[in-house]
Amino acid sequence: MRDVFQQELRELQERLVEIAELVEDSITNAVTAFAKTDVAVAEGVIENDNRIDEKTVELDELAISILALQQPVARDLRIVVSALRISSSLERMGDMAEHIAQLARYRFPERAIPKGLKSTFTEMGRVDVEIAQKLVVLLKTQDPLIANEIRDEDDRVDELHAGVFDKLLSERWKGEAEATIDATLASRYHERFADHAVSIAKKVQYLATGDWSGADDTETSA
Amino acid sequence: MRDVFQQELRELQERLVEIAELVEDSITNAVTAFAKTDVAVAEGVIENDNRIDEKTVELDELAISILALQQPVARDLRIVVSALRISSSLERMGDMAEHIAQLARYRFPERAIPKGLKSTFTEMGRVDVEIAQKLVVLLKTQDPLIANEIRDEDDRVDELHAGVFDKLLSERWKGEAEATIDATLASRYHERFADHAVSIAKKVQYLATGDWSGADDTETSA
Repeated sequence: MRDVFQQELRELQERLVEIAELVEDSITNAVTAFAKTDVAVAEGVIENDNRIDEKTVELDELAISILALQQPVARDLRIVVSALRISSSLERMGDMAEHIAQLARYRFPERAIPKGLKSTFTEMGRVDVEIAQKLVVLLKTQDPLIANEIRDEDDRVDELHAGVFDKLLSERWKGEAEATIDATLASRYHERFADHAVSIAKKVQYLATGDWSGADDTETSA
Repeated sequence: MRDVFQQELRELQERLVEIAELVEDSITNAVTAFAKTDVAVAEGVIENDNRIDEKTVELDELAISILALQQPVARDLRIVVSALRISSSLERMGDMAEHIAQLARYRFPERAIPKGLKSTFTEMGRVDVEIAQKLVVLLKTQDPLIANEIRDEDDRVDELHAGVFDKLLSERWKGEAEATIDATLASRYHERFADHAVSIAKKVQYLATGDWSGADDTETSA
């Protein structure tokens, strides 16, 4: 029975890694679609998000069946509950990537990235992709150093997010309302993407250390 | 043992209702703070959100201890897992109310609601408050008619959300970038608030009917 349980936990972990890899694909392509206003790539992201949603539902069902059949307690129970929460955050990360891709689709054939913000969004996209890559490694290895790196990268995204508003509110900003709306939403989606990764990192750290404080979701910035 | 379990499930339900009532307070006050740019009311919302976060963590701990000690299966297990998910959505609704309140705090002493959008945001706020009220009743009664009403109200919020963008993109919109940013974010927060309520309504409906399809989270609009 114990062996079956350990095997099922491994299965849960492997599925989380698999979903995280799909999220990594999604954000990589969403960033490309947004940078190049590439509709075909954007549509691939939207399709990929359906796959992420399906895989998340399947993982949740597996977690619930483990709870029912194995009746885990103590740390094992926390692992299964954490898997449910991590899958929910991964699902939201997929949604954020999809939203970024949709901005490209709405603006085509015009440029999706508002003028004057290209370098900021290129950097934000680069950091979000890096965060997604690190998340895959974190879910594979549970290495607390990677969790810390994700927090640092999130701080960088928060800075860039604040920088977008500084630009939009400066006298030099000449964008129309459409550009202001796109920049506001795109920045928020990039920032929330990183927030969800931090929330996953906290849960993984908890599992590694047993320290649950701060492992519940709270948004890191407005 | 069975009696203890039933009592614990009631306790879970009562705590969900209590958190939903706090969320109702939060959105009611956030809407007032935003309409009147009232900083004191806004700060009350921010304080109330800490209480919501604490209550959510406590409820989650209770749910996990029920899983550990009672080892529920089948429908009972789904109820406990659903409680965890509902608490997570309630926590996010509290965050959305807090974000709306913060917009009032940032703009003071200027008006928080951008010119030309007062009637739209008054209506959006009214519907969000109604949704929060209905959610309290839904969590108390599990009445499927209330769940349907919440979906209808969410459709209304989605319409209003689209209407905000129509206004911002019309030639008559004369707002500065600041007003455009505020309107974009405020509209998104109101819309997400309603989305989370629908996601809770789906879970409650599932518990009442046993039909899980569509009870997993997906965002209803971009």
